[in-house]
Amino acid sequence: MEKVQTYDCTLRDGEQAEGISLSLEDKLRIARRLDDFGIDVIEGGFPASNPKDIAFFQELREHPLRHAKLAAFGSTCRKGTDPRDDPGLADLVASGAPVAAIVGKAWDKQVTRALQASLDENLRMIAESVAFLKDQGLEVVFDAEHFFDGYRSNRAYALECLAAASGAGADCIALCDTNGGSLPFFIEEAVAAAVDRFPGQLFAVHCHNDSGCAVANSLAAVRAGARSVQGTVNGYGERVGNADLLTVIADLQLKMGFDCVGADNLRQLTAVANYVAEVCTFSLWSHTPYAGSSAFAHKGGLHASAIARFPEAYEHTQPELVGNSTRMLVSELAGKASLAAKADLLGIDLTDHPEYIQSILDEVKQREAEGYSYEVADGSLALLIEGALGRYVPHFTLESFRVIVDDREDTGARAKDAQSEATIKVHVGDARFVATGEGVGPVGALSSALKLALASSYPQVAAMHLVDFKVRLLDESTGTDAITRVVITTTDGSSTWGTVGVSENIIEASWNALVDSLEYGLCRAGVPVRQGAGEGGAETWQS
Amino acid sequence: MEKVQTYDCTLRDGEQAEGISLSLEDKLRIARRLDDFGIDVIEGGFPASNPKDIAFFQELREHPLRHAKLAAFGSTCRKGTDPRDDPGLADLVASGAPVAAIVGKAWDKQVTRALQASLDENLRMIAESVAFLKDQGLEVVFDAEHFFDGYRSNRAYALECLAAASGAGADCIALCDTNGGSLPFFIEEAVAAAVDRFPGQLFAVHCHNDSGCAVANSLAAVRAGARSVQGTVNGYGERVGNADLLTVIADLQLKMGFDCVGADNLRQLTAVANYVAEVCTFSLWSHTPYAGSSAFAHKGGLHASAIARFPEAYEHTQPELVGNSTRMLVSELAGKASLAAKADLLGIDLTDHPEYIQSILDEVKQREAEGYSYEVADGSLALLIEGALGRYVPHFTLESFRVIVDDREDTGARAKDAQSEATIKVHVGDARFVATGEGVGPVGALSSALKLALASSYPQVAAMHLVDFKVRLLDESTGTDAITRVVITTTDGSSTWGTVGVSENIIEASWNALVDSLEYGLCRAGVPVRQGAGEGGAETWQS
Repeated sequence: MEKVQTYDCTLRDGEQAEGISLSLEDKLRIARRLDDFGIDVIEGGFPASNPKDIAFFQELREHPLRHAKLAAFGSTCRKGTDPRDDPGLADLVASGAPVAAIVGKAWDKQVTRALQASLDENLRMIAESVAFLKDQGLEVVFDAEHFFDGYRSNRAYALECLAAASGAGADCIALCDTNGGSLPFFIEEAVAAAVDRFPGQLFAVHCHNDSGCAVANSLAAVRAGARSVQGTVNGYGERVGNADLLTVIADLQLKMGFDCVGADNLRQLTAVANYVAEVCTFSLWSHTPYAGSSAFAHKGGLHASAIARFPEAYEHTQPELVGNSTRMLVSELAGKASLAAKADLLGIDLTDHPEYIQSILDEVKQREAEGYSYEVADGSLALLIEGALGRYVPHFTLESFRVIVDDREDTGARAKDAQSEATIKVHVGDARFVATGEGVGPVGALSSALKLALASSYPQVAAMHLVDFKVRLLDESTGTDAITRVVITTTDGSSTWGTVGVSENIIEASWNALVDSLEYGLCRAGVPVRQGAGEGGAETWQS
Repeated sequence: MEKVQTYDCTLRDGEQAEGISLSLEDKLRIARRLDDFGIDVIEGGFPASNPKDIAFFQELREHPLRHAKLAAFGSTCRKGTDPRDDPGLADLVASGAPVAAIVGKAWDKQVTRALQASLDENLRMIAESVAFLKDQGLEVVFDAEHFFDGYRSNRAYALECLAAASGAGADCIALCDTNGGSLPFFIEEAVAAAVDRFPGQLFAVHCHNDSGCAVANSLAAVRAGARSVQGTVNGYGERVGNADLLTVIADLQLKMGFDCVGADNLRQLTAVANYVAEVCTFSLWSHTPYAGSSAFAHKGGLHASAIARFPEAYEHTQPELVGNSTRMLVSELAGKASLAAKADLLGIDLTDHPEYIQSILDEVKQREAEGYSYEVADGSLALLIEGALGRYVPHFTLESFRVIVDDREDTGARAKDAQSEATIKVHVGDARFVATGEGVGPVGALSSALKLALASSYPQVAAMHLVDFKVRLLDESTGTDAITRVVITTTDGSSTWGTVGVSENIIEASWNALVDSLEYGLCRAGVPVRQGAGEGGAETWQS
């Protein structure tokens, strides 16, 4: 099978999407997950635009990706400037990324009207910038911005821009449908013209979905000879989004006979889609092709009975090929083998307990139906598995808690200087502890109270700190009464773990995630469960 | 311009979507709205499957649509049955709908394996059913189920099925990609073969989006000679959905030179998409091509400045042609031009106040540095700008609030059955209101208390409902003490707006976003600020 290179733009174009704002940790998580999935090139962002992206490239210099090549994104040198004097190009080199992707103009009108440069100057900027980066030993991708608009407006000039990049040694030329307005038959014609004109040159295609055709446009380009596809996970991107790279990969592998990530990795597709959505604090849109929870969901008597007799009639592909299933429930853990593999990663060997796997899966599915998500909550999952194996003994139990938040006027009706106070009553073995914690926020107050109450029994909790706290409403139509999912990330300084809590009450959801975070921290450190005052010398006390 | 017939399946296929359940009134509303929009054929459903659909056809017999033809949906006669004895066909006739759409099989394997009939018997069922309905004076659409799978599997037989329908006088033959697995180039080839074989026959195409290509597939069919397109509003439908008929219409009219609903009606496209979403109790997916709220939204300094000079570079079509508009997402990268453009879109003309633009921009930047984000918080931004212009007078002011959350043990240390209670003290002019609200969650309790406190002064707040509530921690390194950003989306039933609150305390951040949401709702509705008890008869009271 012929290979088509996969090039992910989630960390650059995806972050341009409305509502997406990624932290450094988010970006690193996505990059490493896509690396595991087998994506060939991962575009990391502008290496000098802000401290977050600078830290991102630095982290990946120190701990490189395993399979994927990292690309730093920038532009050609400015008009009237020598590439050697261009700070943006210097940043690309300094980033340490092995691939530099630079955008340049390929539409005559954009050169004259937006850039306000001559057509020849634009060709110089392209050729000299590519040549400069090649001289620095980088692999160079030239993004021909608005190539398709340029091809429509001034075909000869659009091809001249490609010639400038190709002649200067660009390893790949990405033909970009920047405003997303092109249709597949035109894309196919224009890509074929480029491929025909520059034999041996690797071409990529970069599509946006403004006409609802981004996936089809990407496929049309591959039919015409492009051998690299750019896109974003779940199509996240500016305006209506980019081509959904996962859909393109599935179509290329399952329907067009090309290889992108291999058949084995393709089974991670649904998990990757959900993982990236989760990191972006979105729900994966249920109607996403291949990966969505509705993608292989069937409704209506006619189809349900027919599927039993003749599945191909209602499922265009086997859902397991992309890690999805005909059932409603989508989970990274949907199969027994993947649960066992996941448990193994958590240090729990299930091979001695095959009889428990189905009941664990059932519980995971039950909880996911209630709104839990274990994709980034390894700690909660480990506790669930240990519980199913009958090996989990809680380090402490709750009697009750009360949280009070007092607030007062700042300006008009806005409030400031909130004060929170949490009082909790917990038991460690036969000892009862009542503790009150204060904080600005209610979760901080609860966390403080709980750590105070446990301090004498389990001094290890003092070293555990929350580093991330994510909240998402699951059923948006019901507003403040909706089910709330809280995902907490905790560190003990040397490693981090995630835990999850679900409730209609955000405080309760946070508490449950917090309990899991300390419990899992104690379990993974091998701290024995204390039986009470006699053993630990603890007494009922109040902070 | 050549006409392409538009055929809507929202009331049949759309209702197969997960989460969609339409009442009689809903179906009538959608039908009349699509009629006004200029859709040519509206498929109403199965005319005998349930009392709702029976009543729907009866209502439209008594009060017909103005432009659109109503289609009743059913199947060919059963195997071994004479059409004259088939109750399903009789129901189509009895429905009074002028168009009968009947589905029949066109894939040899489905005939033998699912239907368990001979290939000849299937041809008889098609031909006799079409002829029977034609004899009854109906316009007949034959839906060739799985035509593309059939064409792939047994080309000659698939075409024989079309011959049976065409020979019996079918007015239109719909070529259905029933499992949604086909790609555009194959669709184009197969449709061209059908058009070539049956000159003069009207063909429709019916696509599902399982490969992410439903829109492109529909366009490819029109290129190959189909002159009727079937789809659903916003692509609602089983699994990942049908072709989005609105996107197909926009592409055909704006990019391929065909006429569907005319240029004037096309300007209703965004309104139709939102209307149908609302009736289906969904928010329109913001990334919907042409109609979505993000479809013409721009972020980032590079683009914002470029758009002003050269709009075609970033907008594939003029948004007003489909009734949408350009949105500038204000971010810390924004400059003066994009702030002025943004204010203009919010109905605030800053051209008379150039001296304020810099100070507004400074305040936006200051607040963004504190953690605010105005990209999706138009309501808060409008209040900020009005405040800077000295025109904003608060409708109410806060004295203080207190929130209490009580919770108790569920299992081990996890909690359940949280109860929240919020007591707020606010002032409207010289009147003071104290109200207590209850809820499962603290934000719901606060919202309830605030609406109670304002009910007598501003009854308009009763119609404002939260539809989305997003929470994000901004500085992950500090865990629960981190700055929290809450973004709320509110609707009054006809429009929606976003507001933002930021605090180290999640309850306070929620409160401030909530205050903005009601304040902006009151401001945009032009509700005057009340001066107190003397004016509104309000007194201090407690719920």
